[in-house]
Amino acid sequence: MAKKNITFNDIAQYTGFSKTTISRYFNYPDSLTLENQKKIGDALKRLNYHENKVARILANGKTEFIGIIIPNLYLHYYSSMLNEILSTYEKFGYKFIVFSGSNGEETEREYMKELLSYKIEGMIVLSHTISSEELASYGIPVVTIEREDRYTNSVNTDNYLGGVQATEILYDAGCDVYLHINSTLSENIPSYGRIRGFTDTCGKHHLEHRIFSKEIPDDYESIQNYMAEFLNTVARTYPGKRKGIFLPNDTYAGILCNLLIRQYRIIPDEYCIIGFDNSPASREAVIPISTIGQQIEAIAQSAMEILVAQINERKHTKSSLPGGLTHKVIPPVPILRETTTKR
Amino acid sequence: MAKKNITFNDIAQYTGFSKTTISRYFNYPDSLTLENQKKIGDALKRLNYHENKVARILANGKTEFIGIIIPNLYLHYYSSMLNEILSTYEKFGYKFIVFSGSNGEETEREYMKELLSYKIEGMIVLSHTISSEELASYGIPVVTIEREDRYTNSVNTDNYLGGVQATEILYDAGCDVYLHINSTLSENIPSYGRIRGFTDTCGKHHLEHRIFSKEIPDDYESIQNYMAEFLNTVARTYPGKRKGIFLPNDTYAGILCNLLIRQYRIIPDEYCIIGFDNSPASREAVIPISTIGQQIEAIAQSAMEILVAQINERKHTKSSLPGGLTHKVIPPVPILRETTTKR
Repeated sequence: MAKKNITFNDIAQYTGFSKTTISRYFNYPDSLTLENQKKIGDALKRLNYHENKVARILANGKTEFIGIIIPNLYLHYYSSMLNEILSTYEKFGYKFIVFSGSNGEETEREYMKELLSYKIEGMIVLSHTISSEELASYGIPVVTIEREDRYTNSVNTDNYLGGVQATEILYDAGCDVYLHINSTLSENIPSYGRIRGFTDTCGKHHLEHRIFSKEIPDDYESIQNYMAEFLNTVARTYPGKRKGIFLPNDTYAGILCNLLIRQYRIIPDEYCIIGFDNSPASREAVIPISTIGQQIEAIAQSAMEILVAQINERKHTKSSLPGGLTHKVIPPVPILRETTTKR
Repeated sequence: MAKKNITFNDIAQYTGFSKTTISRYFNYPDSLTLENQKKIGDALKRLNYHENKVARILANGKTEFIGIIIPNLYLHYYSSMLNEILSTYEKFGYKFIVFSGSNGEETEREYMKELLSYKIEGMIVLSHTISSEELASYGIPVVTIEREDRYTNSVNTDNYLGGVQATEILYDAGCDVYLHINSTLSENIPSYGRIRGFTDTCGKHHLEHRIFSKEIPDDYESIQNYMAEFLNTVARTYPGKRKGIFLPNDTYAGILCNLLIRQYRIIPDEYCIIGFDNSPASREAVIPISTIGQQIEAIAQSAMEILVAQINERKHTKSSLPGGLTHKVIPPVPILRETTTKR
């Protein structure tokens, strides 16, 4: 930092090329002969030139930045998704400016404003706060993951298929009554598909079933209290019946299993349990939990592929109007462990 | 994006101020009277001006970027630390460019090069790969967390105290033999202090003790295999003795507890277990696990305070030489749960 920054002028003088040629070397290297590229490249090494991306951005508008807004890193689903997105750097070279936290619309708009002021080239949004219509209005490529996506590109798990798979696994295990816990989802959220998959499969097999809908904050105490209350209700309502329970994620499933194990030291035969996500918590539980696995790596990869394709398209067409939208759906993978064994 | 960008020239013409005054408004607002600041501010609103931080960076060199290099997001310690660092945005306004993954020295140098090319103002490093000497040589303020920190500022848990606390808790529980598992740490890693705290406390009370050192990869299978092997060894070596086991983190402690519960349906009275970190896994376990809590929020806050202070100092002194180093130590908090009850 103590060193004087080397300018295009310095490089031009040193190499004998014009400043325009030096600028072309950085922005359109293919427009120079290989020989001249090599001459300039060697000179840069001898000059000990360190690239200043900020200067380059002003020259060509390519920041190589992608913004990420993620609701929290408590749910393992989000921290593994973030990990997978960050690791695409090796493949695509994009850098990520990350905001975390669902602190309401105004805060998220502040995040958006910050991201836009840094001329991010695209955005991956996992939080549910700002509508896809508003996200689309910012005029840059956006991919959303598992949230309302009417006006944005998106990558989602095939939630309907996941709901069907979970219910069929409980059916195979010979349950008497089928219970599904979920948030009070509106129908335009992808994971609403799980409710439809559950309901349709129960209908197909004429199964006694019930959906428990409630908005629960994403913290341990709230979830545990709700699950304890739920267990009381179902034990009282369905005594002696084998209860098949389909949870919205593995965090819920783990907490439910732990409550049962604390009470009975095992998971009683009367309960079959299946989670969603295939997070480490499900695999590493005392009694490994059956789950519907989300292909996190494939979702992160697809999100980046769609985003990068749109970024490149915009560069070539110089258009500020988005092309068509891409909605990619990734199939989930059922994973049978020890909480859904047949009677 | 479709709109024409508004330039300083446009603002100057619109307000009647000179371009220099407009530039001063953005970079040194205090040099203008409050009245003139208000006039320009109002004009910007009417012009629907969107700040271009990239342009501003070139003008004043303040990117408001901080780089983060974190080894992984699998260990809950890292994902909660990242969460806490990101959430300091509300307080300090710095934005974070995040790299994750310990993919060897060359890859991390590539991360560093990227971060530096974006003129980051400071850096928080949690990965262990690059020496503090090299980190210091990049010429920007650096704070490291829980890693070798000879040449960098750092914030660490008081690991020695943590080791003492853990051992005293096992001693209070009346164990007969004291076992500590850790990686093959070199003595200049902060968490080596835990080994010293354990050894000194065992020495003070004349306790039979043993340290198991081995480098284990940060994935579930490797840790579980190692813990299963460890359990076999200690059951064979210390039959009938009450074994007090101090684990390097709650992930290890959770896996050990689960192995015992799978085998015995409870944690037998012969085992006392204490982890480190106070991650959600310890609290949410079937049998809640005693642990030495790290004050993640305080650590993240302190790291940012030190970093921001140094960034500001450099701005005023225009010095490229770092001042003295700050090494801050945060005390851990012992948390007694159900795995260290007295006989």
